[in-house]
Amino acid sequence: MAQDGSLADRLLGGDKRALARGISLVEDDDPAGWELVRAACPRIDRAAVVGFTGPPGAGKSTLIAALVRHQRALDRTVGVLSIDPSSPFRGGALLGDRIRLSEHFLDPGVFIRSMATRGALGGMAEAALQAALLMDAAGKDDVYLETVGVGQAEVDVIDHADTVVLVLIPGSGDSIQALKAGVMEIPDVIVVNKIDHPLTDTMVREIRGVLSLAPPVPGWRVPIVKTEATRREGVEELAERLAAHRAFVVEEGLLEERRRRNLLNEVLGLATVRLRRALEASLREDPGVQELLDEVVARRLDPATAARRVLEREGVDNA
Amino acid sequence: MAQDGSLADRLLGGDKRALARGISLVEDDDPAGWELVRAACPRIDRAAVVGFTGPPGAGKSTLIAALVRHQRALDRTVGVLSIDPSSPFRGGALLGDRIRLSEHFLDPGVFIRSMATRGALGGMAEAALQAALLMDAAGKDDVYLETVGVGQAEVDVIDHADTVVLVLIPGSGDSIQALKAGVMEIPDVIVVNKIDHPLTDTMVREIRGVLSLAPPVPGWRVPIVKTEATRREGVEELAERLAAHRAFVVEEGLLEERRRRNLLNEVLGLATVRLRRALEASLREDPGVQELLDEVVARRLDPATAARRVLEREGVDNA
Repeated sequence: MAQDGSLADRLLGGDKRALARGISLVEDDDPAGWELVRAACPRIDRAAVVGFTGPPGAGKSTLIAALVRHQRALDRTVGVLSIDPSSPFRGGALLGDRIRLSEHFLDPGVFIRSMATRGALGGMAEAALQAALLMDAAGKDDVYLETVGVGQAEVDVIDHADTVVLVLIPGSGDSIQALKAGVMEIPDVIVVNKIDHPLTDTMVREIRGVLSLAPPVPGWRVPIVKTEATRREGVEELAERLAAHRAFVVEEGLLEERRRRNLLNEVLGLATVRLRRALEASLREDPGVQELLDEVVARRLDPATAARRVLEREGVDNA
Repeated sequence: MAQDGSLADRLLGGDKRALARGISLVEDDDPAGWELVRAACPRIDRAAVVGFTGPPGAGKSTLIAALVRHQRALDRTVGVLSIDPSSPFRGGALLGDRIRLSEHFLDPGVFIRSMATRGALGGMAEAALQAALLMDAAGKDDVYLETVGVGQAEVDVIDHADTVVLVLIPGSGDSIQALKAGVMEIPDVIVVNKIDHPLTDTMVREIRGVLSLAPPVPGWRVPIVKTEATRREGVEELAERLAAHRAFVVEEGLLEERRRRNLLNEVLGLATVRLRRALEASLREDPGVQELLDEVVARRLDPATAARRVLEREGVDNA
């Protein structure tokens, strides 16, 4: 505990290595990690947390790198957490992201971290939020969460953000369709990156069309920001829009509401992840559970009855 | 129970209304629904289950309608389950699908059903699989599961299929990027629909490029089938490819392997859904849990400790 105490002190003092160690502990589900989050607990809720989502190849990492540079010029400290859901066989696909952010590696005011999705994304979302909390407690003014994809699981990860940014490019037809069909939620800010592309204006028009159909949020009109992240064009405007949205959610009391909801979801999520892990262990280790599963595979027992009996064996009351 | 018994008999006899009623019971988590799955249990594992995924607007429903027509001409019976993840405010967006399938509504050899995602997609995947099992037990030769999206949660739903088909259109840039980055798994069959579009060949070339980078599955080369579903072009070739893949997984013993894995995952999934539901109830109803949550919101308690204490209150052993 003495060692944890000093790790917590160093982390709260903004020490980069202590923060890195803390996030590793949380990621590994080490009890010392949870101890650390507990110690850091009263020191959080200061950072502006922005979630960036969108299809792979939209230039999110380049955009974030440009944004980090912009915020550093304003003397704000930044933490970046990239969540990489690429499947194991293509593990290197998103490695370029780290290269794009490399100019900030030596800056003590910037902390950059990647997390690979191992196992269930549900557990990933929990670990990512814990990491974000630690960055916040370590004194970062801005925390950027980056994830790839246009599905619900990806959104869960950035759902903990105060502001959600969707990054698209000309050609993001599938994402437009997903927004239009209501499969993807309307974000707080939309970026159209790579605006040298001749179809940029078409894409902006399509987004406007989708937004005009969405139920309006009183007091907030979703801005569409055009950027060319490689040249840092439009990045200043994006930073302004992010600050404006943050001010909006604070003033309207929405921030407290969102954070309360997120914390409750997180407790539920953490409890479920723990339960599922306990179940998986009993599925592997308990011979009685193995017998139940063999019955299911032999079609002598239905899955629901098997599930109920597994829970009974775990001592869980489930009527 | 007498009524359930007769419902089961009628369902196993292929009665459409009994099947509809059975799926409603399963969807509502009614104990009679689980009773029904139990009774149907020894009669499943005959149908060829095909999962269709892809972005909204790719024409999956039109394609499935054309495929149903093709299979009916071969005198095969078909069950279709459309899983609609559109958010409540845009509930009608996917309603068109039903219109596209309407020519089959009066055919006793075709059963069509929509399911809306309420609550967690995890629970949805479980309900969808139970519904597929009932269609199988009711004697359908082919069961088609349709879902929208390019994220992991959507894939979970169709992961129970023996064959997975990804439907794309010219302009599906985001899906190509997701395949390339390994965010989306390589499917068993790829369809490029709406081939009147001038960029069709470009899309096919891009898909070939992605496939050439993927680790090969010994004995199966992922076919790219070009279709124009509104004119039923390419549908016969698609049906042949689906039959060929089914023959492949049966011959290689992969079908048994997949189904065993899916059943184990299903037991685990059902147990987790039940647990989560019990937890949510206690979060709402148990005053002791409410106090824990207030402590978390006040930042006097960290989420992980709260989660552990919630589980302790439920009597779950979690070290």
